[in-house]
Amino acid sequence: MKNRVKRYILPEQDVPTQWYNIVADMKTKPMLPLNPATKQPLTAADLYPLFARELADQEMNEKDAFIDIPDEVRELYKNYRCTPLVRAYELEEALGTPAHIYFKNESVSPIGSHKINSAIPQAYYCKKEGITNITTETGAGQWGAALSYAASAFDLELAVYMVKISYEQKPYRRSIMQTFGAQVIPSPSMSTKAGRKVLTNTPNSSGSLGIAISEAVELAMNTENCKYTLGSVLNHVTLHQTVIGLEAIKQMEMTGEYPDVVIGCFGGGSNFGGISFPFMRNNIKNGYKTRFVAAEPASCPKLTKGVFQYDFGDEAGYTPLLPMFTLGHNFSPANIHAGGLRYHGAGVIASQLLKDKMMEAVDIPQLESFEAGCLFARAEGIVPAPESNHAIAAAIREANACKESGEKKVILFNLSGHGLIDMASYDRYLTGDLTNHFMSDDDIAKNIEKIEKFV
Amino acid sequence: MKNRVKRYILPEQDVPTQWYNIVADMKTKPMLPLNPATKQPLTAADLYPLFARELADQEMNEKDAFIDIPDEVRELYKNYRCTPLVRAYELEEALGTPAHIYFKNESVSPIGSHKINSAIPQAYYCKKEGITNITTETGAGQWGAALSYAASAFDLELAVYMVKISYEQKPYRRSIMQTFGAQVIPSPSMSTKAGRKVLTNTPNSSGSLGIAISEAVELAMNTENCKYTLGSVLNHVTLHQTVIGLEAIKQMEMTGEYPDVVIGCFGGGSNFGGISFPFMRNNIKNGYKTRFVAAEPASCPKLTKGVFQYDFGDEAGYTPLLPMFTLGHNFSPANIHAGGLRYHGAGVIASQLLKDKMMEAVDIPQLESFEAGCLFARAEGIVPAPESNHAIAAAIREANACKESGEKKVILFNLSGHGLIDMASYDRYLTGDLTNHFMSDDDIAKNIEKIEKFV
Repeated sequence: MKNRVKRYILPEQDVPTQWYNIVADMKTKPMLPLNPATKQPLTAADLYPLFARELADQEMNEKDAFIDIPDEVRELYKNYRCTPLVRAYELEEALGTPAHIYFKNESVSPIGSHKINSAIPQAYYCKKEGITNITTETGAGQWGAALSYAASAFDLELAVYMVKISYEQKPYRRSIMQTFGAQVIPSPSMSTKAGRKVLTNTPNSSGSLGIAISEAVELAMNTENCKYTLGSVLNHVTLHQTVIGLEAIKQMEMTGEYPDVVIGCFGGGSNFGGISFPFMRNNIKNGYKTRFVAAEPASCPKLTKGVFQYDFGDEAGYTPLLPMFTLGHNFSPANIHAGGLRYHGAGVIASQLLKDKMMEAVDIPQLESFEAGCLFARAEGIVPAPESNHAIAAAIREANACKESGEKKVILFNLSGHGLIDMASYDRYLTGDLTNHFMSDDDIAKNIEKIEKFV
Repeated sequence: MKNRVKRYILPEQDVPTQWYNIVADMKTKPMLPLNPATKQPLTAADLYPLFARELADQEMNEKDAFIDIPDEVRELYKNYRCTPLVRAYELEEALGTPAHIYFKNESVSPIGSHKINSAIPQAYYCKKEGITNITTETGAGQWGAALSYAASAFDLELAVYMVKISYEQKPYRRSIMQTFGAQVIPSPSMSTKAGRKVLTNTPNSSGSLGIAISEAVELAMNTENCKYTLGSVLNHVTLHQTVIGLEAIKQMEMTGEYPDVVIGCFGGGSNFGGISFPFMRNNIKNGYKTRFVAAEPASCPKLTKGVFQYDFGDEAGYTPLLPMFTLGHNFSPANIHAGGLRYHGAGVIASQLLKDKMMEAVDIPQLESFEAGCLFARAEGIVPAPESNHAIAAAIREANACKESGEKKVILFNLSGHGLIDMASYDRYLTGDLTNHFMSDDDIAKNIEKIEKFV
């Protein structure tokens, strides 16, 4: 054990200078988003009213495999990047597996998760284009906290619609946003038409990401010099997250190994894509056979049990129609503790890749996710975010399979964030107060039937 | 700004191989602790019943300036060390100061603070000596959380007495300890004579570090194969923390600058000593003129307004008598939010150094500390622990003085931890719900008069 290397560290100058846009390399391109009124494919220009132009252009870019990272963004990345790649020796020993387990540790960012990787460029481009106000929504609060920091760094006014149940259950994340100067509104709220409609029908609604998106979009559309921003799902968000995988490729080279399996938890798909797509490039271009596994919660099984179909990204139907694996945009997921994974649809790129069998998906029950998280914490000393626990659980399944087969696979997963602000959830797990939530096939079928057929 | 270096990173092999014991280099050695019954100076052997032998030997070591770090400890240090040294460009810009501000970022440790630097070796030596159970106390919970991780890593049973007000106000830290498998008891409790006595006299006592220490010591003395551990104050704890300053010296070399001022917040003195003592060696040995500033809360001003005198380390008087700056071991500090700084006495080494004018002290009002923390958070993106805010406030005072004088001083402070689990405190600050707490000179004098004169 003496002198074995545990953490592979890259110097600051190795912070990537470009993001990787996998769409340019995909043999089957994702289908285009549609304008819900006309059913016509969208152009980047159609998105300009909603997003900063540069972000809209990135969203629709099918041409450039690599896109330059602006110096100002790279400068703020250097506050916490490159993040370490870690060999999880202690976890391997606890499992007794012959597999080699690595994780990319995004929990060391100042806000405690990968979300900041996209918050910084989104705020930067808005500022650069003269925008003064931005809006967004947040579930568990990881995205809202990250964007609050970025908005403060670029001197933008930020309004965050926070899903009401999280606003009440996760006051620490709300306070982080307020410390950075953001305005935080529990959603559904009376401040928007979309919120008022929900409250009229369901006065006690505890909110959902879909509703909060509707509110944030509505406010952006009705405020001068204001744009909307989103923390996952969209192509440009995943693009920004590829700094994770681009660094990890270099760091895996330092280990002398290459991953047989790459794993990420899956809400909208941005952290999964961030770690996976740079490695997937080697599958597309160089015939590598690495497997890519998205780990979703069993209570919200859009990848394993959803349908591939055009659907809205939000509850009220304000967004373009996106071709994605979905459980229906009106789906209300169970109140599981991995708030960041409670979303009805999957990003467009990941949906196409799953359809084309370039990646796989597994669904993880809530109790298995926390069991994995506690084992990891005791072994490696880091309490993971409830979302990240799904990736850990999937990695443990792979490592246990190696124990049975005797294979020495190399497993890489993304530790998307730490759970230090989610201890109330661990508390409930440790006191036996948590249960599993599953959707019956009947309920899924009923929900999917409700999705309007647009095409 | 392009390509300027912000974070100075050392490779894993630069994790120190030895700790620095400043006592060996001090011209005036600290006076020895006394046995309260006999008033005779203690030997290391007198401490063996309470502490692991190796730790007791380190506590009394006046001879060796450098002490080897065991491989097993260094291996766990490598999970998060070396920690970054950061140039706080954004903070400098926000202040408009010509000073160069650096901070050592201990908040990146898995538990979020420097405490883990001593938790790991303390647990290691206990394990090595065949001890199966350990006890400790914790205030805000930073030390308890770090030791819980270390106890889990070395497979020791741990009982933590947590100051009752923190147990109730900081449930997240309690949950972290429980996630690592520790038993957490609110103090004062009925489980010890010391606790029962307090509860009899003051049934609604919200506890104090002094009481919790008494309880943890009593349990250790009455349990088979059990030792007591402490997270600050003692020489061996500060010894372990010198990894901070030893790394920082190498990292300052990388910057091409050397600090004119080194600053740490001050509770018992271990993080302050950890960053300061390796630099102070250059003052002692090589005639350097660096200033060392301890930043304590104005509500608990032992360094700036206390008396240098033999006093107990705990409320019940179980510990040896220590020669230190103290406000009296029965002093109950105000319920400020920097729970880790609410302690009546200063470590023996720092007390002697202050007496000898080798270091200075400043006291920071609570509101100034949070104002500094919020400014730092918005500039650097890291929400600091309420304790660390005191160091930041002192650094800002120095930087503002440079702005007035036009001096380009080099300021280095230790960011001992992040505040992500202390957001309730920020919440109260942001809503205007916090006040300053000061002790009047009369109250201080009355309190100090109560200290028994032992010598």
